[in-house]
Amino acid sequence: MELQRVMRMNSGAGESSYANNSKIQGVIISRTKDIRREAVVEAYLCAAASSGTMSIADLGCSSGPNALLVVADIMEAIERSCLQLQSPPPDFHVLLNDLYWNDFNTVFRSLPEFYRARERLPDCGRCFFSAVPGSFYGRLFPGKSLQFVHSSSSLHWLSQVPEELQNGSPVSCLNKGKVYISKTSPWAVLNAYLKQFRRDLRLFLRCRSEEIVGGGRMVLALMDRRSPDLGMPEDCHLWELLAEALNDMASEGLVATEKIDTFNAPFYAPSLEELKQVVEEEGSFSITTIEHFEAGWDAVADHHSGGEDQHDTIDRENGAVHERRKSYARRMAMGVRAVLESMLKGHFGEGILDELFFRYGKLLESYYSANKPEVGNVVVAMVRN
Amino acid sequence: MELQRVMRMNSGAGESSYANNSKIQGVIISRTKDIRREAVVEAYLCAAASSGTMSIADLGCSSGPNALLVVADIMEAIERSCLQLQSPPPDFHVLLNDLYWNDFNTVFRSLPEFYRARERLPDCGRCFFSAVPGSFYGRLFPGKSLQFVHSSSSLHWLSQVPEELQNGSPVSCLNKGKVYISKTSPWAVLNAYLKQFRRDLRLFLRCRSEEIVGGGRMVLALMDRRSPDLGMPEDCHLWELLAEALNDMASEGLVATEKIDTFNAPFYAPSLEELKQVVEEEGSFSITTIEHFEAGWDAVADHHSGGEDQHDTIDRENGAVHERRKSYARRMAMGVRAVLESMLKGHFGEGILDELFFRYGKLLESYYSANKPEVGNVVVAMVRN
Repeated sequence: MELQRVMRMNSGAGESSYANNSKIQGVIISRTKDIRREAVVEAYLCAAASSGTMSIADLGCSSGPNALLVVADIMEAIERSCLQLQSPPPDFHVLLNDLYWNDFNTVFRSLPEFYRARERLPDCGRCFFSAVPGSFYGRLFPGKSLQFVHSSSSLHWLSQVPEELQNGSPVSCLNKGKVYISKTSPWAVLNAYLKQFRRDLRLFLRCRSEEIVGGGRMVLALMDRRSPDLGMPEDCHLWELLAEALNDMASEGLVATEKIDTFNAPFYAPSLEELKQVVEEEGSFSITTIEHFEAGWDAVADHHSGGEDQHDTIDRENGAVHERRKSYARRMAMGVRAVLESMLKGHFGEGILDELFFRYGKLLESYYSANKPEVGNVVVAMVRN
Repeated sequence: MELQRVMRMNSGAGESSYANNSKIQGVIISRTKDIRREAVVEAYLCAAASSGTMSIADLGCSSGPNALLVVADIMEAIERSCLQLQSPPPDFHVLLNDLYWNDFNTVFRSLPEFYRARERLPDCGRCFFSAVPGSFYGRLFPGKSLQFVHSSSSLHWLSQVPEELQNGSPVSCLNKGKVYISKTSPWAVLNAYLKQFRRDLRLFLRCRSEEIVGGGRMVLALMDRRSPDLGMPEDCHLWELLAEALNDMASEGLVATEKIDTFNAPFYAPSLEELKQVVEEEGSFSITTIEHFEAGWDAVADHHSGGEDQHDTIDRENGAVHERRKSYARRMAMGVRAVLESMLKGHFGEGILDELFFRYGKLLESYYSANKPEVGNVVVAMVRN
């Protein structure tokens, strides 16, 4: 429960809020649009059309504009399909889930505007919203109550730091100075993470299999690893550089080394194969599509500025790629901060955050001057057997 | 929508929060316990026992401890009945409703403790919580999806200030210097309020009739009038004294008179007969029980201090009723402030609130020195035909 308390995106709508720093998550939602729309229409036709009600859950909805972006897109896909079939749209029951400490108030306060926008559309289904707080690594909904489940940028968060890596255990000592799997991590560390991921995902699938009706669908997007090997630099750079920034500060006496040694992220980016294997072993769902894709920071910049901002012009004129990458690095540091701040504050104290993320931004800047500013993701669509 | 934005209880858990100033609402929940428990068991037996799932909505749940108090009591009643019948308890689907600007975050953050408490109980049903934001004067839930609806201390709030009393209309000029029906209000003002109440309650019943299954039940508690006549002092004292405090401040130039003239509360406390008549005319529900009761501030004091506080002892020794009533007046002023602050702030500005509620407390104190510190309420139980 303690982890659930600190694992929350920055609330509100201010400068450092998740709402204002979740462009990359928005890009991932755009990139998975076609797969999601296809799956949701299949789910509607197969499991909802006859009843006239379609229940849709978004797991790990968080509190920014992305929460309602996905929902609007899902409903639009179904309404379009209904129009083609000349059948009336269903009533939508939309269930937004996140942990107990998520800022649901901010989501709710954007609903009146959402409803007003829908009122202007023709052929709209009625739409009932609710928020369902709790961990998706447990039951959240009554049995057989959902036709479609969506989760984006959430399932790479584990239910807990792997037990073997918790404070003071022998394996945890093997990962000193690191905060996640790194290129120097020994096998026992990799294995602890993989085991925890497999256990969590199996539990997730079992819970959803009780909640989703036969023929219902699920689309999950999460960070993944390009390489089947663990600890490759391009797969771990976000954590590796965070550890580096922390260690820099420790060397100047600004952070206690012991604090770094006892921190391990409750996170795992699986390979496509690892993900596939757990779904197949668990057996409740059949994968219909699985794809790796890169979420590039170019898209974030474009998304952020409408595609034609000052930077674009400068770039075209003098090829100032360096300037752009500096700007990605800054945005990335802000984005990571909006996600991790609450968790890091709980472990390291609030005092170090400004300095930490300043250094982190610099390290990202230097990394992106030599490497593509991209993060690997996987999207998987599946049907309830 | 503007009214929905300002009509919210004070958020959080601080000194001036609704969570900390809603004892009287808690007393009302206790006083209506028997009627509610009987109705909910009937609803379970009649409409849920066969399916094994019981959906319960609490409308106007707000954000204090009362939100979960009712839910716990409802589930306990059903679980006890299941035990007697030697049948397993159902899965509970609990839907907490309030307006978009309600502080749902605070409710959600108390859920982990609620679940922990339930884990210690034997023979518990599984329990799924969700929050459903929006006005109960509109559809909130999918059709035929509820077995039991509860609403306490909420339905005396109208969907809007009666149109005839909105800014600058001829009738509104007749209620100058008043903020609700008062003993000097002309017939047109009384009628505008009654009409709005009737329209709102009919809409409420029609929406619920679509959402509640046949045999499902509803228990509603709200402030009422003892007298069939409107404007009787004991029925209006809370608003009458608020207007008096405002007018006092206006006479000293601290509040603009025009601001008072253009403020009318979106509130109506019906007589038992008025309530009964609307339910019968609308026709979807049959009343099984309807009762008037007084919520006395004695109960609040006892509730607050566990029944045997210092005041009780002093009272018994020297009959210091005056001291106790002073303390009720203070608590009452705090309670009214927690409910009205957001609404008054929107109209009068934040600056006047401390002074206003100081004066209001003094006026209540003097009123309670001559009158019983009580507020009339009605509880009505009904079954969906």
